[in-house]
Amino acid sequence: MDRSLIEKTFEQEKERFLSEWKEFLVFKSISTDPAYAPDCRECAEWLLNHLKKLGFEGELLETSGNPVVFAQRVGEPSKPTVVFYGHYDVQPVDPIELWKSDPFKPVLRDGRLYARGAQDNKGQVFYFLKALETLIKNNALNSTVKLFIEGEEESSSHGITEALPSWKDRTKGDILMVCDTGCLKPGVPTITMGLRGILNLTVKLSGLTKDLHSGVHGGVAPNPALEMARLLATLHTAVGIIAVKGFYDSVTPVDDEDRALSSVASLSTDEYKALTGVTPDGGEKGLSFSERRGLRPTIEVNGIHSGYGGPGTKTIIPSEAIAKLSARVVGGQDPEKILELIIDHLKSHAPKALTLEISEQGVGGPALLLSSKSEVVKRATDVLKGLFTVPVVYLWEGASIPIVSLFVKVSGAEPLLVGFGLDEDNIHAPNESFSIEQWKQGFLYASMFLAGL
Amino acid sequence: MDRSLIEKTFEQEKERFLSEWKEFLVFKSISTDPAYAPDCRECAEWLLNHLKKLGFEGELLETSGNPVVFAQRVGEPSKPTVVFYGHYDVQPVDPIELWKSDPFKPVLRDGRLYARGAQDNKGQVFYFLKALETLIKNNALNSTVKLFIEGEEESSSHGITEALPSWKDRTKGDILMVCDTGCLKPGVPTITMGLRGILNLTVKLSGLTKDLHSGVHGGVAPNPALEMARLLATLHTAVGIIAVKGFYDSVTPVDDEDRALSSVASLSTDEYKALTGVTPDGGEKGLSFSERRGLRPTIEVNGIHSGYGGPGTKTIIPSEAIAKLSARVVGGQDPEKILELIIDHLKSHAPKALTLEISEQGVGGPALLLSSKSEVVKRATDVLKGLFTVPVVYLWEGASIPIVSLFVKVSGAEPLLVGFGLDEDNIHAPNESFSIEQWKQGFLYASMFLAGL
Repeated sequence: MDRSLIEKTFEQEKERFLSEWKEFLVFKSISTDPAYAPDCRECAEWLLNHLKKLGFEGELLETSGNPVVFAQRVGEPSKPTVVFYGHYDVQPVDPIELWKSDPFKPVLRDGRLYARGAQDNKGQVFYFLKALETLIKNNALNSTVKLFIEGEEESSSHGITEALPSWKDRTKGDILMVCDTGCLKPGVPTITMGLRGILNLTVKLSGLTKDLHSGVHGGVAPNPALEMARLLATLHTAVGIIAVKGFYDSVTPVDDEDRALSSVASLSTDEYKALTGVTPDGGEKGLSFSERRGLRPTIEVNGIHSGYGGPGTKTIIPSEAIAKLSARVVGGQDPEKILELIIDHLKSHAPKALTLEISEQGVGGPALLLSSKSEVVKRATDVLKGLFTVPVVYLWEGASIPIVSLFVKVSGAEPLLVGFGLDEDNIHAPNESFSIEQWKQGFLYASMFLAGL
Repeated sequence: MDRSLIEKTFEQEKERFLSEWKEFLVFKSISTDPAYAPDCRECAEWLLNHLKKLGFEGELLETSGNPVVFAQRVGEPSKPTVVFYGHYDVQPVDPIELWKSDPFKPVLRDGRLYARGAQDNKGQVFYFLKALETLIKNNALNSTVKLFIEGEEESSSHGITEALPSWKDRTKGDILMVCDTGCLKPGVPTITMGLRGILNLTVKLSGLTKDLHSGVHGGVAPNPALEMARLLATLHTAVGIIAVKGFYDSVTPVDDEDRALSSVASLSTDEYKALTGVTPDGGEKGLSFSERRGLRPTIEVNGIHSGYGGPGTKTIIPSEAIAKLSARVVGGQDPEKILELIIDHLKSHAPKALTLEISEQGVGGPALLLSSKSEVVKRATDVLKGLFTVPVVYLWEGASIPIVSLFVKVSGAEPLLVGFGLDEDNIHAPNESFSIEQWKQGFLYASMFLAGL
């Protein structure tokens, strides 16, 4: 099936596609609030029914939370099996007063469809479904395709994460396609080559029965606020290298070609300052922007709280201090092991006069690390080259999508993360939207990639 | 005038003394709440009137806040001039429901007078006045005595602090007597030999336009929470010595005899742990408890706040971090200069990628440092030796009473801090009280000391 036929289908079917996409968007499938659990289920049922109409068999897979829509269509055994992961749940709509139109009454304005979920992830899921439909109608879908579309991505993917290991056979496949990412800039085709893994923990230093008078006890009592600062300061060397013993031992080396490719996604100091207010001078000194952001692990302090914080003074030695930490891990690092190393470090560096407590330890999943030499990446590159005139960008992301890492592990499939989101889409914010142009790019990419298998 | 006559006076006049002391205690002279300003003024007028009846001349000195009661009685020019500092204002009474009797209706129970201010400072001021009265009646007060009894000590002494420099001539004297301190333990006569000075500042690190996603920006954006920890960690060396350049340069050396005397007021590790929950392992390693508490300066973190502190995780790089710092200075250190050194240190150690702001700088006053070789201290020691069978304790306190330091500076007088307060008096708390026994000790001490001049 060639590109011109796919483009022609888009032009002919555009109005119907848009109308069906709107149907998908009216469900208030907000997973963060249990009050919307019935809306989530209705949305899942609509989606399953839609997939059945396209020629898929399927069912709702029950979890401890919202159901996962599972659908499959068996193809030729000689072709690679495609597993697709997406989500039908959406972010809450607060602050609702900032929306220019009802978030659950999709409206087309200036070539963009406005609604909660218009992009994340209903919009991107939907171009994938319409690509499948187009290929099926043209007898051009030869691979087995399995879809897993969950309903709790915006609230930690708890249900699917619990259930996934027991679905090992069902998820088995060759290529895991995910369309929940974006383009570096408008019109720049982007393959996400890496996601960092994540872990987190809460650290507490205590022992004092109450806040102490800083005059009567200063110089004698150990100070939890000061000691927390001193403890956190041991996590990095003066040049920003993580000082936790063994932390980097298992990091997978990145080859020079990929490191060079990653630098395309860099921002200049001025661009970064315009975006964040600060120069990009965090992390390990001497490494490039893109390497520090996507290829190197970090330990971040997400919060510290101790003692007085109001106006004026309160001359106390605070009774306790807490810090919230998270770490991003990269290819090769086992987040469970890294969490242990960090805890060992904290234990060995904490002052003996205070009580150290570690709590709320959590591991979000390992990193994803692809190589530009991967067959799947090469194939996607060829498809994107055929659709765009500007070069494909390879993006090693700093962020984490733990469920994707877990999906790769359980399914044994090679991940392929190509999406068409942009900053201007305002996902997770009021007035979320997705342009027809972006949707079309996604539809063409998905159709061409699947047709070429 | 000998001790037996003074003791006899106490026995004969006890009921009257108690009755007048109660009159002083009924005024709701709470300085922290402006609603009680009229009560403060009534109390000041009563006090001035009382002093006039004793043979003093005086007036209310107006300040920006509550008036200062000033009274003097001129004695022989060859005798040292005694300046007395005290305060007639009291702490608030909340939580009022925990009081067993009305805080402003003094009641004698089991040998203790219960009322707000029964000890702090009305009770201790009043034994001093009754000592003056006793000496005057017996023609035994030969020194000039000047009293300054303020009405804002519990709310920062703002008015008197502003006014004091302009009262330089009026305050001029040889010995500054203050009875606003306590005994180490019941029945143990105690001379307070030192008070640390204090300064404070607020430190802020900012620059990020908002909290950033710790995955997208981790390793690239400077992290204000982490950088604040790293900055505060530079304030001390690994063994707790303050690392601010020049910090210790002007510290007055304490001689070995005083250092040995100071150790009498030490607490054992077990005693300290019972009191505070922690072992006394703060401050400079290798120095004794009493040296670290009373003779060495400190920098304390009174609070740190940055980013997330609630349950679970929030994977952000916080947009800013604040820390509240205070320092206690010792003899020889100019708190203004020390504040400058700390600010210089922070400026030179703060990360260049973030914005450092210093605000709310305040200097509470320099330290007080006495020597056991001081004539005034020797004289007080002799008086206390005559009244008690247990040895006199010399206490270098860690806390600060900035107004006393300022009074010493303005008046040129040598300070003498002897008081008879005890932990059991519950000052600043519900059911404040002062025992007749402690009041009597104060009365005997003040009478004998003044008589001996």
